[in-house]
Amino acid sequence: MRTPSYLFIALLIGILIGAGGTLLIGGSTSHDQPLPDREIIFQVSTIDALLESVYDGVLPVSDLSRYGDLGIGTFDSLDGELIMVDGVVYQARADGSVVVAPDDLLVPLAAVTFFDPDITVPDFSTGSFAEFEDYIDGTIRSENLKYAIRIDGVFSEVTVRAPHRQERPYPRLIDALADQYMATHTNISGTAVGFRLPEYVAGLNVPGYHLHFISDNRSVGGHIVDFSLESATVSLDETLTFMMRLPSDGGFIDADLTGDLSDELAFVERPGQE
Amino acid sequence: MRTPSYLFIALLIGILIGAGGTLLIGGSTSHDQPLPDREIIFQVSTIDALLESVYDGVLPVSDLSRYGDLGIGTFDSLDGELIMVDGVVYQARADGSVVVAPDDLLVPLAAVTFFDPDITVPDFSTGSFAEFEDYIDGTIRSENLKYAIRIDGVFSEVTVRAPHRQERPYPRLIDALADQYMATHTNISGTAVGFRLPEYVAGLNVPGYHLHFISDNRSVGGHIVDFSLESATVSLDETLTFMMRLPSDGGFIDADLTGDLSDELAFVERPGQE
Repeated sequence: MRTPSYLFIALLIGILIGAGGTLLIGGSTSHDQPLPDREIIFQVSTIDALLESVYDGVLPVSDLSRYGDLGIGTFDSLDGELIMVDGVVYQARADGSVVVAPDDLLVPLAAVTFFDPDITVPDFSTGSFAEFEDYIDGTIRSENLKYAIRIDGVFSEVTVRAPHRQERPYPRLIDALADQYMATHTNISGTAVGFRLPEYVAGLNVPGYHLHFISDNRSVGGHIVDFSLESATVSLDETLTFMMRLPSDGGFIDADLTGDLSDELAFVERPGQE
Repeated sequence: MRTPSYLFIALLIGILIGAGGTLLIGGSTSHDQPLPDREIIFQVSTIDALLESVYDGVLPVSDLSRYGDLGIGTFDSLDGELIMVDGVVYQARADGSVVVAPDDLLVPLAAVTFFDPDITVPDFSTGSFAEFEDYIDGTIRSENLKYAIRIDGVFSEVTVRAPHRQERPYPRLIDALADQYMATHTNISGTAVGFRLPEYVAGLNVPGYHLHFISDNRSVGGHIVDFSLESATVSLDETLTFMMRLPSDGGFIDADLTGDLSDELAFVERPGQE
């Protein structure tokens, strides 16, 4: 009976190898940790909730990497701007500093995706954000689809801002941003990341272009108000699936999200161009 | 060398059994087939695209079961109303018939979820859709969250409708529905399924209540215009995550989705109550 028992053991070992290998290659047994689908823009909460002062964080920074490696957002208590580049989440704060965000810091609003560029524009230069928009609008397939954006290169000028951490009772976003940090940097190498979204996302996210910046040396960054490029590579990732997780408690539940806040949004996102 | 080769074959067979078993139990090696997360409302396309006559189907009926077992929608060329109950997709057509939809029939717009009720209201009766809405609005936790709905019981009256299959060039939805099938059934046992969605989904889906009906004997059904209940169980599934897949071609790419079609939507969804 020695041979059959060896066979049985070999069979068992094989079953274990096969099962383990399959799990390692790509299987998953938990509903909390599905396989990453790279063609999804994942978002937590809505932009209108932020406009209505829902600043309580609901998702830890560490969880964002399940859903993407590039993205933008903000932090609990509106404590700065979130910039995710190559899977690392940076926090640009209102004192002008940039730090790697702690894993357990909570995020009230963010949108991320796994960035796989479908369109690449090399050696791109532009005099302004508006000029950039006009050009990119001409390269995309449809204004009804969603695009993640990444710009790498030398920014002749970039104006960034970051909100101050807010105290309760939270003011509305338009008031909270009245005294935010703002700075203009010239001739700086860095990366801008963000999205171009269709008009119909109004209420959920920012229609049009929304970019955050971080310098190559990771010392400055923030929400981009305006910029010009000396020379850069622009990459776009057309993304067909959108996934939004709503906060299950906190201010979101009781916020008044019935109003049309598009004018207010345009003002807080890109003052002077709304 | 006979024993080692048997061992090798046994090992290989084991690896295959192990890998196959793991896939069957719950693994996945394709990004197209992630594990089902039951707390997601999955949607293909947008309601405004349908209003703008984007009737080309993009997702086969068979794929809907990956994302849910209950839901509503329509079919390629606007050929009737989609009612998904207990994982079965029914097609209520403009000739008054109801059939189980073929697996390969394409869907231009649908929303489905795995229905796990969080709230159950037994022995419920109501004189109208509007009265039902008022009552249910009082039972939910927040108007900012999303709810799948299921009603099982005796409908004292239910008025349903179903659009005619459209020919190219497709008319806009408001015109396509001008001569749709409509019928009122009295004292009929059946099931209504659908959603209550927040105001901020405007453009993507139908804000408020949207229900489709199918009779217990599966002979009549359609989009509910109005109803009253003699006695029914109402169940609600609060669902925090929303997932939307956009069509990658067809009419969606070129549709004008920038307008505010909320008045038109109210008219086509619930004529007389907009």
